Amino acid sequence: MSDEPKAPKHSLVVVNTGNGKGKTTAALGVLFRAWGRGLNVCMLQFIKSTTSNYGENKAARKAGIEIIGLGGGFTWLSTDIEKDKALARELWDQCKEKIASGDYDVVALDEFTYPLAYGWLPTEEVIEFLKQRPKRTHVIITGRDAPQELIDYADLVTEMKEIKHPFQQGIKAQPGIEF
Amino acid sequence: MSDEPKAPKHSLVVVNTGNGKGKTTAALGVLFRAWGRGLNVCMLQFIKSTTSNYGENKAARKAGIEIIGLGGGFTWLSTDIEKDKALARELWDQCKEKIASGDYDVVALDEFTYPLAYGWLPTEEVIEFLKQRPKRTHVIITGRDAPQELIDYADLVTEMKEIKHPFQQGIKAQPGIEF
Repeated sequence: MSDEPKAPKHSLVVVNTGNGKGKTTAALGVLFRAWGRGLNVCMLQFIKSTTSNYGENKAARKAGIEIIGLGGGFTWLSTDIEKDKALARELWDQCKEKIASGDYDVVALDEFTYPLAYGWLPTEEVIEFLKQRPKRTHVIITGRDAPQELIDYADLVTEMKEIKHPFQQGIKAQPGIEF
Repeated sequence: MSDEPKAPKHSLVVVNTGNGKGKTTAALGVLFRAWGRGLNVCMLQFIKSTTSNYGENKAARKAGIEIIGLGGGFTWLSTDIEKDKALARELWDQCKEKIASGDYDVVALDEFTYPLAYGWLPTEEVIEFLKQRPKRTHVIITGRDAPQELIDYADLVTEMKEIKHPFQQGIKAQPGIEF
């Protein structure tokens, strides 16, 4: 192996996982930075919460960055696994369309590890699709419990690990800083 | 202790540390999100690199977010410890001024752990200042090797842990995605 880093064959698959803060926020930072370079970016959000996306949606609108909430009713607490699977597939189809369009330099799939970790979407199928994606398109996947196969396939994986959280001291989440 | 989270007495001190990606990027995401809410934010960068800030500086300019590179010649590889200490103090004075102004909702001190970890600034002095800061001002500190006293004092601490990095596979850093 040469000491000289070789140019990448294609763009990167990035995974932000772990139980700590900053998985979505770091993805957002990447989008913001890429947007600063004039690149075309979007974020597709799997878990839509009424509060936690508020700040980033406002910021995205203000900057003209696309953040798309997929299926407002999506929940990982359903008792009907077949329903969950069908919905996960429907949302994944929307992601595939965005990625396959070739229009984007960076596509972030926010909280996408959950449908994988819960077995609603086969990770191998997702990896097969990512292998075929347009060469220009970086994909960032966020969420806890990223499956090992995804970690093995990804180019850049960071674990955000909680060392200390204000909830532990009974302090409420802060608008503007945490969401 | 009550189950009900109590309202914070003042804003948060957030630390993003660890050897992985996403420390600065997550801080940037927080600033972007807060900016989306119309809050007043800025980032002061201790370690100024000619390439690694490129994307975020462009994004910041485009959005009108203040990112200030402190002392272009700052390096943690100097052989003159007294010179390092003097420079660290000079840069810290600039940070103190920004924070003490009371004009900001969020101030990010990027790569600020280094002058602390290298002993150029006493961590206790920094903590004493942070305790006196205006109540509205959240402070985010990023960088590897955050001193334990800072972790003990901070409200929210995340370790960004490298699981896998493209450098390991000989792939170069990608503009737009990594810087």
